[in-house]
Order: sequence, then C-alpha cells, then structure tokens
Amino acid sequence: MRRAGRLIALPGNEDLAARLGKGLNLPWEALVYRRFPDGESYLRIDSDLHGTSAILVATLNDPDARIPAVLFAADLARDLGATRVGLVCPYLCYMRQDQRFRPGEALTSRSFARWLSGHFDWMVTVDPHLHRYATLDEIYDLESSVVSAAPAIAAWIEAHVEAPVLIGPDAESEQWIRAVAGTHGWPWRVFSKTRHGDREVSMVLPDLEPISGRQPVVVDDIISSGSTIVQAARHLNEAGLAAPIVIGVHGLHDDQARDRLRQAGVVRLVCTNSVPTSESEIDLSDLLSSSIRRLAGG
Amino acid sequence: MRRAGRLIALPGNEDLAARLGKGLNLPWEALVYRRFPDGESYLRIDSDLHGTSAILVATLNDPDARIPAVLFAADLARDLGATRVGLVCPYLCYMRQDQRFRPGEALTSRSFARWLSGHFDWMVTVDPHLHRYATLDEIYDLESSVVSAAPAIAAWIEAHVEAPVLIGPDAESEQWIRAVAGTHGWPWRVFSKTRHGDREVSMVLPDLEPISGRQPVVVDDIISSGSTIVQAARHLNEAGLAAPIVIGVHGLHDDQARDRLRQAGVVRLVCTNSVPTSESEIDLSDLLSSSIRRLAGG
Repeated sequence: MRRAGRLIALPGNEDLAARLGKGLNLPWEALVYRRFPDGESYLRIDSDLHGTSAILVATLNDPDARIPAVLFAADLARDLGATRVGLVCPYLCYMRQDQRFRPGEALTSRSFARWLSGHFDWMVTVDPHLHRYATLDEIYDLESSVVSAAPAIAAWIEAHVEAPVLIGPDAESEQWIRAVAGTHGWPWRVFSKTRHGDREVSMVLPDLEPISGRQPVVVDDIISSGSTIVQAARHLNEAGLAAPIVIGVHGLHDDQARDRLRQAGVVRLVCTNSVPTSESEIDLSDLLSSSIRRLAGG
Repeated sequence: MRRAGRLIALPGNEDLAARLGKGLNLPWEALVYRRFPDGESYLRIDSDLHGTSAILVATLNDPDARIPAVLFAADLARDLGATRVGLVCPYLCYMRQDQRFRPGEALTSRSFARWLSGHFDWMVTVDPHLHRYATLDEIYDLESSVVSAAPAIAAWIEAHVEAPVLIGPDAESEQWIRAVAGTHGWPWRVFSKTRHGDREVSMVLPDLEPISGRQPVVVDDIISSGSTIVQAARHLNEAGLAAPIVIGVHGLHDDQARDRLRQAGVVRLVCTNSVPTSESEIDLSDLLSSSIRRLAGG
C-alpha cells in the first residue's frame, strides 16, 4: 500500500480485524463505541489517521441499528484526516429488495447502496445475495471487490468430510454448489421445485443412485430461519440418504433456527466468520486480505 | 399549498399525523412498515404520490434503529413521484455531539444533519437542543422551521395551575422558562450551579421570599434520566417550597426515570406530544401546522 493502512473494528468485528491485521501486517484497533442512555451513538477513534488509508471492518447482519454507526465512523475517519476510507463488510445487507413485487414498495437495496457509496471509497464483501442484479456496480458507485467463500468452504470439506456429495437446496444455490464442488471434482445435486397450485411445492433431487453412500453436504449462501434447509433435510431422509452436514456462507440464524435444524436431523452446522456465530469455523480472512490490499492502496 | 399535500406517518407517529391531517385538512396514511426476520426494514406507501408534496411524520427519540426507515421512506416518496419531500420531526436527535471534548470523537450532529439534508427538502422541528450552534442552518442544508412549544406549555399551565412560579433547573433552561413565563407575566427563577472542586456542585435558587406560597413548575427541554430534575426537586424541598409539577418539552424518559421523579416528590409530570409518552398531555399539532403549511407548499 502506498499509504499507511489502519484497520478499525466496529463492535463485534474485533476478531476478524485482528486476523486481517495479522495477515496484512497492519495495525488494528477497536472503534471506541457506546450508546448514550437516549439511544444515540458515541464514537471515538484514538489513533492518528492523518494521511492514512482507513479500513473499517463492519459486517452488517441485523443492520438497521448498526447502519448509523457505520456511516458515522466513515465520516469520522475522513474528518480525522484519512485520505482513503474503505469498508470490509463480509455480510452485505439490503440486497434482497431489488424489485417492486407490489406497487409502492421501497427499493431499499438502491437507497442503501447510495448511502454506502456516499461514505466509502471502496468496499470488500463476500458472496453478496445478487438476485436480480448481475453485479454490485449496478447499484453501488464505489470500487468494490466480491470475495467468493468457495475455496475456504471446499478446504473445510476436504479436511472434515470423506466422500461428500454437495447438495443445493434450490436453483439459486447452484452457483455456490458448482463453485465449491468444482475445485475437487465432488459430485453435486440441486433440488428442483415444482409448484402445484398456490401452496404446495414438491422438491425433487435428480439422479440419486450414483450418490447413495456419500455424505450429503448442503451448502447455501444465507442460513436464516432455516426452513429451506429443513425441507431439504427432510427430502434427503426420505430419499434414503445420510443425515446432512449444512454449511452456510452467512449465518444469520438464531437459537430457534438451530433447534429447527437439529430436529430435522442436521448432524452439523458450519458457517464462515462473515458473521460471528458459534458455528463460524471457516475463516475468510486470507481470502479477504488480497482484495483489501489491492483496494486500500488506491 | 400549490401541490396536493399528503401526510405519511412512520410507526408510532400515527396519532400526531391524524391531528395534523385534521388541522391542515390533508389526508394522512400510515407507512406500511415491518421488519424482516433478518432485521431489514420493509416499507410500502399505498397511495399515489405523483406530483404531491409528501410530508413524513417521524419523531426521532431512540434514533439509531429508526434512522434507516426515515431515510428509506424519503427516498421512496421521491421515487413514487413526490415533487417535494418534507420531514415533521418534533424531537430532533443528534444535536448534542457538536464539539470534540476529547480528540477523535465523532461530531455526529454534523453527519446526521448531512443525511437529513440529503434526503429532505424541508424540516419542521420543536425546540431543538441548540447548544453550541446558534441555528439549525449552521449544520443543516435544507429549509427548516423551529417551532417553540412555549405557547402550548403556557396554555397548559394557565388551565391547570393557580399561582405558578416557573423554575429552570439550570442556566441552559432559562430560554424555555423566559418564553413560557413571559406570555403571562408569571414569576420565574433559574438555578445557578457553583462547582466546588471536582465533584461537588451546589445549586442555588435566588430571591425566594416573593415566590413562597406559589406552585413551582419546573420546565426543561428534555426529560431523560431525570437526574437534573431530581436535584432541583430536592433543593426546592429544602428551600421550603411546595412539591413541583414538572413539564418537559421532549419526554425521553423510561419507567426508571418516572420512579426517580416520583420518589423525589414530583407531584405531576407532563410532556408535549413531540414524543408519544403516557404523559403527553400537551398537543403541539396546531403550532406545527402553520410551519408545515408554509414549507410543504414550497
């Protein structure tokens, strides 16, 4: 990097910032943050940012209450003299509302993209939920880099699972499944859904014979309520396959979802550390570091 | 107004929006709002805003979790064709952090002012906590109107208190006290604080003799933890005055603060409806309406 870089962790992001600091050989510090009794945020950065490239580390699960602090922190870093301000945001929120399903709905993905673009020079994120957008550049007006978690997930599977078969719970997940399976030549299958009438949906997994006896590993980008995974696990069981391991890139699940997955027979849940959870066994800091190195230099 | 105006209430602001609608003879509606399980906001406006002057009603106590929805709603109104978008924000947050008391602190008042200014054409608020700023225009870049709650507070006192004496708990409150007392020629006093050493502060109320026998009415702009009021009530008691009625412009207090005030001998707590509380007996909608009428027309 041409300028001295400095990592600043928003609350809850200290562990990832420390790992990135080690990998990038850059200093990191925690943003001094507290909430006043009236609900306003207090922020302070104790180090001298003058002339530096500030790298804010802030993942954005449960986003609304966190968004003001992230934008305040960007303003603060610039105010304190940082010449370049970037955001490492492993889980990028507000990617889903990208189309009006009913008239009058807010396209929050576009508003949120404008806010981040107005406060940061660059952003690194992991497997954003690009749905109807082809790339982040359709809505974001900043330099961005999208990191794929696939190599880290494949490495975890390689180390922990013998004879895996990768399972995608729906057509949308095919992109993650292909990327993970491709590196090691593992077999993979994706559920297809057929809708009957208004409510009934049947899920079908094709060509089961060659994968019987292998360990199903269900991979999805976001684990939230867990209901998609529960359905998939039920169908795997009915098809006579072994109880699945589940891997999520972004773990947005709570204890209720954990119970639901356990009851559905999921033998193990593993996530990346894009969101800090008790299942965050897959570390993305090495994958993030090379993108950060490139963008933080400017 | 030149354009048709339309009031849109954010969650919790329905009562004020309905009152404003009645006073301004304008239609109002509730923003359709819910939170997704992953913590993101869903917003919808069901009416046709094309060519209208949209008037969002959103007070900003406990602000952080509410800020995204307010900014999303402004974007949405414009997106749906509103030609002018204004904010009725009786309690304006983020007015306190206006100076660095320690190096590296965030000047959140300035960031927040930029966000609102970037989303709204105009704003109406009530008695903002202008501390080191002389006017909102020092940090806000939109048309704004500041409504004083004093006439509504004076009318309440006139109707409910015989022989009042208005009491300001500290020097900063003198502006509210003067404005309320002035209209009716009521006597008023303001506590002066003298600091002894690091921690000890003595509070003094001057010239007590002429006000003995009158009903103390303590008026302050913000009731939050209640500790300032508790101190004032204790000193009034020591000075042999009657137990006070307390009037707050903006009620940010919780049940703990309510208990504290009761234990300190406060006989009655009354607030305006700038923030909806169970003590919001003083309605500001008439005072707000004339400012709104002027600004919404453009």
